[in-house]
Amino acid sequence: MATFREATPEQEAFRAELIHAGRLIPSGVPGVYGRDRVFEDVRSAVDQLVDRVAAPDAAERLRFPPLVPRSQFEASGYLKSFPHLAGTVFAFEGTEAEALEQEDRASRHEDWSEFQSMSDLVLVPAACYPVYPAIAARGPLPEGGTTVDAGGSYVFRSEPSGDPARLQMFHQREMVRIGEPEAVSEWRDLWRDRAIKLLRGLELEADFEVATDPFYGRSGRMMAASQREQALKFEISVPIGGPEPTAVASFNYHQTHFADTFGIELADGGVAHTSCLGFGLERITMALFRAHGLEPGSWPGAVREELWPQ
Amino acid sequence: MATFREATPEQEAFRAELIHAGRLIPSGVPGVYGRDRVFEDVRSAVDQLVDRVAAPDAAERLRFPPLVPRSQFEASGYLKSFPHLAGTVFAFEGTEAEALEQEDRASRHEDWSEFQSMSDLVLVPAACYPVYPAIAARGPLPEGGTTVDAGGSYVFRSEPSGDPARLQMFHQREMVRIGEPEAVSEWRDLWRDRAIKLLRGLELEADFEVATDPFYGRSGRMMAASQREQALKFEISVPIGGPEPTAVASFNYHQTHFADTFGIELADGGVAHTSCLGFGLERITMALFRAHGLEPGSWPGAVREELWPQ
Repeated sequence: MATFREATPEQEAFRAELIHAGRLIPSGVPGVYGRDRVFEDVRSAVDQLVDRVAAPDAAERLRFPPLVPRSQFEASGYLKSFPHLAGTVFAFEGTEAEALEQEDRASRHEDWSEFQSMSDLVLVPAACYPVYPAIAARGPLPEGGTTVDAGGSYVFRSEPSGDPARLQMFHQREMVRIGEPEAVSEWRDLWRDRAIKLLRGLELEADFEVATDPFYGRSGRMMAASQREQALKFEISVPIGGPEPTAVASFNYHQTHFADTFGIELADGGVAHTSCLGFGLERITMALFRAHGLEPGSWPGAVREELWPQ
Repeated sequence: MATFREATPEQEAFRAELIHAGRLIPSGVPGVYGRDRVFEDVRSAVDQLVDRVAAPDAAERLRFPPLVPRSQFEASGYLKSFPHLAGTVFAFEGTEAEALEQEDRASRHEDWSEFQSMSDLVLVPAACYPVYPAIAARGPLPEGGTTVDAGGSYVFRSEPSGDPARLQMFHQREMVRIGEPEAVSEWRDLWRDRAIKLLRGLELEADFEVATDPFYGRSGRMMAASQREQALKFEISVPIGGPEPTAVASFNYHQTHFADTFGIELADGGVAHTSCLGFGLERITMALFRAHGLEPGSWPGAVREELWPQ
């Protein structure tokens, strides 16, 4: 099993509160929870607020299931940066006798992993991943590039934690800009400002910072340093399970990484740049519960008006 | 890899039509597609139509991510009935040196499966699975039992196919009734009638039949015979990729199977019965494209009025 990260006492207390109120339903595995109607109503309202803020982009709306082809995943470089976070899909391909043995062991909670083989699918690590090959398959970009709204897709991270804000599967509300370098970085800066405004409009203590991804291992420290130096990643953080803020939105500039990998060309034949941004919908939902209480009916009127405009 | 099931020429032609119109975006793996705005607008409208039909049930709305704890899955008996359809989640737990070797092999599209270990999570095989342990954890049921609306959750089936209606990951719009045997079977019969009416209201050629699950292997044939004899499963089928109808809704009566497995008690201490029903949202969406064309704007007025009431 991946290493379990203990909660701080404050995170644990907030988790207990969320569970006691029924907002989260523990599954027995850390970071995997059911959600009640109140939780989901808030999450949907945040998603729709992002829709309203995103409207001027007139982005193309595409949706993808939370799986990507393994061959694309292998080409993406994800395993270089985040081998510890990936989840792969395995399945059974044996004989009837092996199926019986597998079931027999599983029913006794013994090891049945030897009967499972790697499939050609991997859990989606970030909601933007399926967008690049889909756009590449169309041929060169139109003039001005393209903007894709990939919606609130479930993504997977193998990182069991007692912090309720660190889920193993969560909705990433993702948008992607693909085009000329300037257009792409302007769009990212625009969204950083929009996102700060959106979150502060919900009366959350949102702060912006240059950030780094949780790269793996020793070479990861160099990747993080280089990423920070070039300011390729911004995050907006908000206090959730304690005063230490947690990232709730992330803005990534990939330069030509994905365009090179999947072959995305500009209208004039040059290599495109790409940028994506993602809102962590469950984290924003929990930040709202933390800031304003577990009953949205008693939240400040201005916050309710942002989420559920009349 | 799981065995690929070839499409019939008609299924292949319909798949090509859906792709050409942009409704489906091929990922490179059979049965895994992106969807465009038109597809998703129809899928959402069908989901909301089910909401309206379900309103009198006043079901409790719960939502679950598409993963279940492996220990629960092992206890559920799914591997006895459907070992060939399950997907398990594996992840990396090795050293830095192994991470390098893994990435090296993966980047060359060679076998890196040996670096992946079975995690404590399994892809959800049916949207009702997380409901039973969640309800069991509350203790005995209230008088009259309970009804849960588990929404349109993604579920996984390892069954690559060229038939566009046979997806490996799709939205199952699921509801669950838990209580006394009579209440549970009455509810299932009520929903069979509601579902036929709902689908015929969309001008689909919906027909109802006693059905069996795709049980695995030789013992599976006996399980199917017994299931059919006791009429434990009904399906509603509609033509999609050709004249041969495809199941778009399924109604399952589990007797005490899940209540025994997870320990769900009636208010008076007896063992509960359970029943679930699921609408295959992508299949209904595709059946509508098949019946009425790929542009919802030109669908019959009565169908549009059902889906998008003014």
